[in-house]
Amino acid sequence: LKIELDCFPCIFRQSLEAGRMATDDQELIREIMNEYAQMVPKIADDAMGPELGRRTQEIIKRKTGVDDPYKEYKELHIERAEKLYPEIKEIVEETDDPLFASLAVAGAGNSIDAGVSLDVDVKQKVKAGIDQGFADSNYEVFRDRLAAGASVLIVGDNSGEAVFDRLLLEQLQQVGAEVIYAVREEPILNDVTLKEAKEIGLNEKAELVTTGSRAPGLLLANATSDFRQIFDQAKLVISKGQGNYEGLSEVERPIFFLLQAKCEVIARKLGVKVGEQVFKLIE
Amino acid sequence: LKIELDCFPCIFRQSLEAGRMATDDQELIREIMNEYAQMVPKIADDAMGPELGRRTQEIIKRKTGVDDPYKEYKELHIERAEKLYPEIKEIVEETDDPLFASLAVAGAGNSIDAGVSLDVDVKQKVKAGIDQGFADSNYEVFRDRLAAGASVLIVGDNSGEAVFDRLLLEQLQQVGAEVIYAVREEPILNDVTLKEAKEIGLNEKAELVTTGSRAPGLLLANATSDFRQIFDQAKLVISKGQGNYEGLSEVERPIFFLLQAKCEVIARKLGVKVGEQVFKLIE
Repeated sequence: LKIELDCFPCIFRQSLEAGRMATDDQELIREIMNEYAQMVPKIADDAMGPELGRRTQEIIKRKTGVDDPYKEYKELHIERAEKLYPEIKEIVEETDDPLFASLAVAGAGNSIDAGVSLDVDVKQKVKAGIDQGFADSNYEVFRDRLAAGASVLIVGDNSGEAVFDRLLLEQLQQVGAEVIYAVREEPILNDVTLKEAKEIGLNEKAELVTTGSRAPGLLLANATSDFRQIFDQAKLVISKGQGNYEGLSEVERPIFFLLQAKCEVIARKLGVKVGEQVFKLIE
Repeated sequence: LKIELDCFPCIFRQSLEAGRMATDDQELIREIMNEYAQMVPKIADDAMGPELGRRTQEIIKRKTGVDDPYKEYKELHIERAEKLYPEIKEIVEETDDPLFASLAVAGAGNSIDAGVSLDVDVKQKVKAGIDQGFADSNYEVFRDRLAAGASVLIVGDNSGEAVFDRLLLEQLQQVGAEVIYAVREEPILNDVTLKEAKEIGLNEKAELVTTGSRAPGLLLANATSDFRQIFDQAKLVISKGQGNYEGLSEVERPIFFLLQAKCEVIARKLGVKVGEQVFKLIE
């Protein structure tokens, strides 16, 4: 997806948020914001959102020397999610359709997103996710295509939600799917990298790969050839979160997009309301 | 109040909102946003919020040639408020303390603010305002100081809320106060100017004056000497809204600030939560 005008103020706010995570030096944060502002007129109208996000976070890393501004934030959210995990696992496994419930939880976990808002009642969101399901769902198509032995590529998004992705990986394993879980190449916002994925133990449930993309949303143009091959060969692809949707929604292959609409721009594209979640096949 | 770093993205968003009110030309809106972005690094750390707002709206007026981008928006909100007015008037007059209720309504009407968010259920807000009163209130001091014949200067804010200010003017008249109602010198955002004040009929309940300030919040440095005199001589001053609070909160004279906290920055300054309203004396 190309950026819309609304993205500029939103990512400006994000630059402030991330700047504050990286440093307490108000002058330095102001310099970061000034540099973002100076960059705005140079951004092409057809730039991609994740690319603007990547360039913004690069300013912060360069100016502050902090390679992973969201480190503590990610740890806190993983910890919180781990605390909730046993209870959520029980709820999922007791439903009539645990695969569906695990998808709903994996989507609801997407509300733990530093890029949009830091303040979220995760438990309430996850439970509501199971109860309400999806505003737009292609779950039945997914289930039909998920024959035993199918290969599923999941493109991960935020670190906190990756804890709940374990439930989805378990459910996919139970139907005999081989799962590959893709993470960001380097720290970007609160997105999951190899470090967090291993900490969470996703390596025990899936093969972990990095994409090569350093943006807060997968841009195939920046992906490694190894990842491109995995992406092209996977029978099913689940893309999690808004950033990956922005990067992948116009790619020519069937992809199931699992995300919450967190802003008006994306909600409008998806035809849902802000806050609603979808499991939408685009092919 | 000096701007905080949070103000930059917020007023950036406001520039987009106002740009869209002034024109449908996407390229022109992008140019407005680029000009705002280029201005950011030049804004002094100790600039005032209303000054940044004024400069931003000047970009829009200059680029689009539209002198009053919020014209239709103001008309719509005045119309909506007028529809609700009879019902709200009845509620106010039936309370035990109509003066208090009229202050609460005048404050709650402040939620009709284009600068912060366009989408507000006015009726619900106004009713809740009466029920909940103020998170921080110096109403009793105000009532005590309001002896018969006292002069009260009200510094108005948005156009929609000015409809409900009629109730406050009526209540002040009933206790024998002479009321002066001050409006912006020129159209700025959805703020009330002489045009709207007369349309609403405030001239029948109070003496109308303009301040000389063209910012979306009164800055005394830009006020006319006539207004300065009125301001200095008024026995009581009620300053409505966030913009006027930003402009006047450090001025050395007692002022009753009647406003809703619409962002974290102002809520923190006031010691309340976002969405709460106050009637706070600073002297």
